[in-house]
Amino acid sequence: MANSPAPPSCRYFNLTYPLPFVAHVEINRPEKMNAFKEDMWNELPPLFAHLSTSPSTRAIILSGAGPKAFTAGLDVQEASQSSIFSPNNSDSALDGARTATKLRRHVDAFQACITAVETCEKPVIAAIHGWCLGLGVDISVCCDVRICAKDTVFGVKEVDIGIAADIGTLSRLPKVVRSGSWVKDVCLSARPFGAEEAEKVGFVSWVGRIGGKEEVVREALRWAELVAGKSPVAVQGTKEILNWSWNRSVEDGLRYTSVWNSAMLQSEDTREAMMSGITKKTPKFAKL
Amino acid sequence: MANSPAPPSCRYFNLTYPLPFVAHVEINRPEKMNAFKEDMWNELPPLFAHLSTSPSTRAIILSGAGPKAFTAGLDVQEASQSSIFSPNNSDSALDGARTATKLRRHVDAFQACITAVETCEKPVIAAIHGWCLGLGVDISVCCDVRICAKDTVFGVKEVDIGIAADIGTLSRLPKVVRSGSWVKDVCLSARPFGAEEAEKVGFVSWVGRIGGKEEVVREALRWAELVAGKSPVAVQGTKEILNWSWNRSVEDGLRYTSVWNSAMLQSEDTREAMMSGITKKTPKFAKL
Amino acid sequence: MANSPAPPSCRYFNLTYPLPFVAHVEINRPEKMNAFKEDMWNELPPLFAHLSTSPSTRAIILSGAGPKAFTAGLDVQEASQSSIFSPNNSDSALDGARTATKLRRHVDAFQACITAVETCEKPVIAAIHGWCLGLGVDISVCCDVRICAKDTVFGVKEVDIGIAADIGTLSRLPKVVRSGSWVKDVCLSARPFGAEEAEKVGFVSWVGRIGGKEEVVREALRWAELVAGKSPVAVQGTKEILNWSWNRSVEDGLRYTSVWNSAMLQSEDTREAMMSGITKKTPKFAKL
Amino acid sequence: MANSPAPPSCRYFNLTYPLPFVAHVEINRPEKMNAFKEDMWNELPPLFAHLSTSPSTRAIILSGAGPKAFTAGLDVQEASQSSIFSPNNSDSALDGARTATKLRRHVDAFQACITAVETCEKPVIAAIHGWCLGLGVDISVCCDVRICAKDTVFGVKEVDIGIAADIGTLSRLPKVVRSGSWVKDVCLSARPFGAEEAEKVGFVSWVGRIGGKEEVVREALRWAELVAGKSPVAVQGTKEILNWSWNRSVEDGLRYTSVWNSAMLQSEDTREAMMSGITKKTPKFAKL
Amino acid sequence: MANSPAPPSCRYFNLTYPLPFVAHVEINRPEKMNAFKEDMWNELPPLFAHLSTSPSTRAIILSGAGPKAFTAGLDVQEASQSSIFSPNNSDSALDGARTATKLRRHVDAFQACITAVETCEKPVIAAIHGWCLGLGVDISVCCDVRICAKDTVFGVKEVDIGIAADIGTLSRLPKVVRSGSWVKDVCLSARPFGAEEAEKVGFVSWVGRIGGKEEVVREALRWAELVAGKSPVAVQGTKEILNWSWNRSVEDGLRYTSVWNSAMLQSEDTREAMMSGITKKTPKFAKL
Amino acid sequence: MANSPAPPSCRYFNLTYPLPFVAHVEINRPEKMNAFKEDMWNELPPLFAHLSTSPSTRAIILSGAGPKAFTAGLDVQEASQSSIFSPNNSDSALDGARTATKLRRHVDAFQACITAVETCEKPVIAAIHGWCLGLGVDISVCCDVRICAKDTVFGVKEVDIGIAADIGTLSRLPKVVRSGSWVKDVCLSARPFGAEEAEKVGFVSWVGRIGGKEEVVREALRWAELVAGKSPVAVQGTKEILNWSWNRSVEDGLRYTSVWNSAMLQSEDTREAMMSGITKKTPKFAKL
Repeated sequence: MANSPAPPSCRYFNLTYPLPFVAHVEINRPEKMNAFKEDMWNELPPLFAHLSTSPSTRAIILSGAGPKAFTAGLDVQEASQSSIFSPNNSDSALDGARTATKLRRHVDAFQACITAVETCEKPVIAAIHGWCLGLGVDISVCCDVRICAKDTVFGVKEVDIGIAADIGTLSRLPKVVRSGSWVKDVCLSARPFGAEEAEKVGFVSWVGRIGGKEEVVREALRWAELVAGKSPVAVQGTKEILNWSWNRSVEDGLRYTSVWNSAMLQSEDTREAMMSGITKKTPKFAKL
Repeated sequence: MANSPAPPSCRYFNLTYPLPFVAHVEINRPEKMNAFKEDMWNELPPLFAHLSTSPSTRAIILSGAGPKAFTAGLDVQEASQSSIFSPNNSDSALDGARTATKLRRHVDAFQACITAVETCEKPVIAAIHGWCLGLGVDISVCCDVRICAKDTVFGVKEVDIGIAADIGTLSRLPKVVRSGSWVKDVCLSARPFGAEEAEKVGFVSWVGRIGGKEEVVREALRWAELVAGKSPVAVQGTKEILNWSWNRSVEDGLRYTSVWNSAMLQSEDTREAMMSGITKKTPKFAKL
Repeated sequence: MANSPAPPSCRYFNLTYPLPFVAHVEINRPEKMNAFKEDMWNELPPLFAHLSTSPSTRAIILSGAGPKAFTAGLDVQEASQSSIFSPNNSDSALDGARTATKLRRHVDAFQACITAVETCEKPVIAAIHGWCLGLGVDISVCCDVRICAKDTVFGVKEVDIGIAADIGTLSRLPKVVRSGSWVKDVCLSARPFGAEEAEKVGFVSWVGRIGGKEEVVREALRWAELVAGKSPVAVQGTKEILNWSWNRSVEDGLRYTSVWNSAMLQSEDTREAMMSGITKKTPKFAKL
Repeated sequence: MANSPAPPSCRYFNLTYPLPFVAHVEINRPEKMNAFKEDMWNELPPLFAHLSTSPSTRAIILSGAGPKAFTAGLDVQEASQSSIFSPNNSDSALDGARTATKLRRHVDAFQACITAVETCEKPVIAAIHGWCLGLGVDISVCCDVRICAKDTVFGVKEVDIGIAADIGTLSRLPKVVRSGSWVKDVCLSARPFGAEEAEKVGFVSWVGRIGGKEEVVREALRWAELVAGKSPVAVQGTKEILNWSWNRSVEDGLRYTSVWNSAMLQSEDTREAMMSGITKKTPKFAKL
Repeated sequence: MANSPAPPSCRYFNLTYPLPFVAHVEINRPEKMNAFKEDMWNELPPLFAHLSTSPSTRAIILSGAGPKAFTAGLDVQEASQSSIFSPNNSDSALDGARTATKLRRHVDAFQACITAVETCEKPVIAAIHGWCLGLGVDISVCCDVRICAKDTVFGVKEVDIGIAADIGTLSRLPKVVRSGSWVKDVCLSARPFGAEEAEKVGFVSWVGRIGGKEEVVREALRWAELVAGKSPVAVQGTKEILNWSWNRSVEDGLRYTSVWNSAMLQSEDTREAMMSGITKKTPKFAKL
Repeated sequence: MANSPAPPSCRYFNLTYPLPFVAHVEINRPEKMNAFKEDMWNELPPLFAHLSTSPSTRAIILSGAGPKAFTAGLDVQEASQSSIFSPNNSDSALDGARTATKLRRHVDAFQACITAVETCEKPVIAAIHGWCLGLGVDISVCCDVRICAKDTVFGVKEVDIGIAADIGTLSRLPKVVRSGSWVKDVCLSARPFGAEEAEKVGFVSWVGRIGGKEEVVREALRWAELVAGKSPVAVQGTKEILNWSWNRSVEDGLRYTSVWNSAMLQSEDTREAMMSGITKKTPKFAKL
């Protein structure tokens, strides 16, 4: 716990540090438009658990490799060959209850992989371009901030393959977008929507002007650098308290805040930040 | 349960099927701008309970008959003659507690009628035009999707007749429009607002360009047809999981999703939808 | 309880009645841009408790004195000299747990002062101009309605002084603004944002066109006059039911509504309001 | 609403009034040990909805006809012939998802019938003797008070027919008996337990000494007569507030109480009760 | 905040320190069997707020002065002369809604006074003897631990004066005694119950053997001395975490615990306690 | 997922199968009275995750090796040498906030290990003898059923080492034991309590008569054999629905039940169980 361990090696995700304290995670299967298969999503929990407590990391950018997509979602072709989606092949003896148990355990495990992005203690900004479909929405809605290129195409596509989205979009989208009518519209109809619409309803909070991946990643870097320069005690506490309060009453949020801050106000960062404000120097904060 | 029973006969609602699997419910008291009286709202529960499980129904349009209004709300004239709103006439012997009990049972029963629209298992799109006041907002906010004509006028008017809206608007509006400032503004002041404003805050997700009822009903038909063409297992599951998750924590939403889908992934629809994607044929889904 | 007591005398808040039933509370420390110190926030609970039950008050405007600011937030200079923020001076004997207890009690007490604005039974509209930073956001988000001048600058600035905002913004902001991405952006980065952006995301529901304090206060007066002319039973019930429903399930909201209204429908106001609609006279409601 | 309507006619339940304001509901299928079939549980909602608002009813006794049983639970023989429990017969074309939908709707409807006992506004005391198995526990746990004869045998038997109890025992039992270890023991093992054990863990609050149905019904009558002599405003309010508070926080309970009583303290009953205490006369309360 | 202020002077409560760190609060109106009137319950908040943060207090005993009663409850005679319970005298102009508002504010304020006992940060043990009726149950159920003399008589008496208990018993009793059947029995019937029964259902956790007040106060002193000798960081944290967890999910309880202890494990007390275990000396803990 | 993998090898836990489908887990560090150190609790998650889905396991017994203890709790000697409990040694540079972060992550991770016992899908019965202190209570309260030998000594001992219990007892104990007064008593005072008292308050549901470990393990085997002979679909569903309902409203419990059973009623087990009831043969259920 004293020394920060090396990050886990990943086959489908690139991890780089383009700036001090700024980690860049790239979904890396560009030849398949970054579509996800089981091996791939299983890499998320160790990767984000590492980043969550890595003292060298204060802000994380998540984007997709290649020019075409953040991610096209589930690799349906691969999934269709999995024993999970063809339950009657290998397990012909299973009755409906036992098949359900197998499916539930599979969905639970899959959800837990994606949730690892949400529970990471450090802020995560999704820099989205190109296709962002199905699982792409599930993942991006776990990030704290979402920005996208002008030509992004989003879609909650699960209905089009005959299922209700089960990896998190339906539970999280109503909590981050203001308009109930719009959420129901795009989830029930599976229709695609673009960057402008995504911004209007508040799903993303910034859209590029010229299009293309470079611009949105550059903006994400700018944001991440800004946040990484702040007190990590303040930033990580802000994320934690926001996440806690989101689903709970104001009363429970206020109390959690005062208990959280009873320890966190004992940091040196407040003094450092106040002093830097007076001396006009860049503050330097200890690791966290 | 095997054969779908005939729909209940309604005096104040027209039920038609303009397209396969698409039900159109018309509030039908145009001579009074579709204003509601007790006989009328009592017809809602049997009607929507029927549609909820009718296998011939996969999407529902709710609109108002006549050119003037979705609904002008409560028929105040009729209500003012009811014994409920003049408690001191017929029941002069009742003390404050007993009057309150009578009023509470009345409001509970009234609320339950309107809630029947919300708990219908099939998606409901409100196609709104003209006046949509008071009870009109209570009802439309129970629908999944709201679209409106350019010249619609909305109003949470209850304050203007000296009461806090008690049939659902105050409980549901903050959950589907998340500008707290705007919600409080229109509910406390009872001021009217138009289609453009309704769209800006996310209360409706589409507004007509040319005005008039035909355009908005046409758009609703287009949307309902799109949704009715999808797997009913996927669409109804999406609605159910969204409704469940809306008021609950992400964790409770995720778990409910995996349990729900442990049965629903055993449908033939996934295979049918995937196959149709490959063969470029329109998928055909079994009844639900 | 029969006669309304005199308002508490305040050093840092002006209380005037520019119109019948309309109270105007001015944050009054213009020489420090209305920055808050402990003496000042301790005046809020008695002041708003008085207004909450004062029968002469039906709507409240909250604004900042002087041309520069609603409030610049916490008076950091004063706070930095408080024993709370330099725990190692006077209490060098305190261990981490005892320091935490001292800090928690301080934050709890501070939060309770600001919450007094939220729990006031009468509607409060914040008329914001100039700087509205840190604690200014904490306070304005406790108001029911927020409107602002064109040249207002907002900022959730706490991260910049090394702390997670602990007086309420992080618990309340996600409940009144539509976009999760935007909320996380401004809270994690502490970046300033202007009136136009505040309106776009729904944080404020009206922005002045010409700039300056007078315009926004005039609009607040107009709104407050409108609301103060309505039935106080209806207005205060609407506020109460909205506040209750905000954090709870629709079911719990509906039930609370019917119980609340079982008493409130026994007012004379409904009759008065209905009658005035027929006779075209201005209704006159009894005190509350 | 003015005159109390006649009670619904029931085939499987006797309704008598052995004492003023005391209703006695007898489960009446003694030749099958009061085992339940679908026709039977469908009679519960109209019967208890009637009692809930009947002004002639202030306390309700629920017991079983015949000497052998409160109820032996589900009539398994009949259920096994229902199409619900043999889904593969008549609906052989249904896939797993559609079968699940059919089953869920059936369970939902069945649960709603039993819940009608819980939501009755008047207190219900279960007077239990003989066998009280499966559905018998589901029903008795919906009652407010449970007392039993010395020779009663209880059992949460569902596990023994291969299902998790789905009509309410598993959701309600942990809330009325809080030895977690005991609740899990009897639900997981389906083992029978007697009156003494039921009393020790708090499932029943009184056990007869001599055995047999007469004694326990007599005690229920004594209790019901006592309660029926109290103010109905006080008794029904007590039941309502207890039910609301049971699953909610203390804060939510307290607030609901003060809102409820803001109307209920306007009854004449307090004066009547206080006066009768002084004058030593039996108080007489108006209908409710 | 540095020096502990003097306790507030109380007319109706004695405050003594029979042992170091052990406060004894005596309800002191023995000539009226410690019955409560408004002046009296208004003294509770300042008294318990003082004890809550007083570093000289680590455990609190609450008992009743005189030989006859813990408290006989509300002073009904005085209450019946209050304008609150005879609303039609002084405020004959008030309609039902305005009367309700007046009553609700009164009940809210009364509840808040009693809640002050519950929110006190230090453990409170109620040493109960003689009569403990109505308000006596409301107060004792706010204490952490309840013990009683052999001849104590309890009663949730409110139903007998025509009201549903509104100061807290109905919200708190189901959370500390989990025989649902017993709770409903005593609350609906208002019947008295004795010490033995109170212990059997878990309402009290110790009963005297010989009867009389001295024995139960002596036991309370023994308990309070034991608790006051422990680490105040540990004891007060234990109370806080138990209170928080009581009404919340296990997950929320666990998380609050880890955040709370992240500060509290930084006390010197663990070392002191561990060391004293090794050296067999009595540990000495710093103030809190 | 098809074939059940081998159980993880554990150093501190014995895993045996004394009967078909009955797993016996023995805490195995008898030379230290089964006291826990970090290596040891880290073995719990993989072990119970394996058992949770192992088709060969239908019931689990948890007991302590050796004659002296279930477990004496935390190995305080070892813990006192850990860097966690002496934060000022190795990390002298850490401020209060950073120390708190380190401690919180440690507690979170520790809690998660113990929670693995609770989330195991199979029923777990704790067979307790000898000492069961501190962490022993934390662990046993995660089990479904608790039984103990006559001479067991329990203690929530954490207060005695200067900390509030932070691994789960304070969050779970109020949910499984009926008496609030008793829970507060034993948690605040850290006093030991014996088997008889544990049974009286419902913490354990069976106590041996002759004392010693053999008797209680024999009883656990008898119980586990009984449960393992039932339908695993029914037993595991019963555990899941009870766990879900415990912390949630009755309404949420009922709905979760109907959705869960919509899949689970599609098992062959109901038919098998019903048939075996008729044919008087022992039912044989497929693996799960």
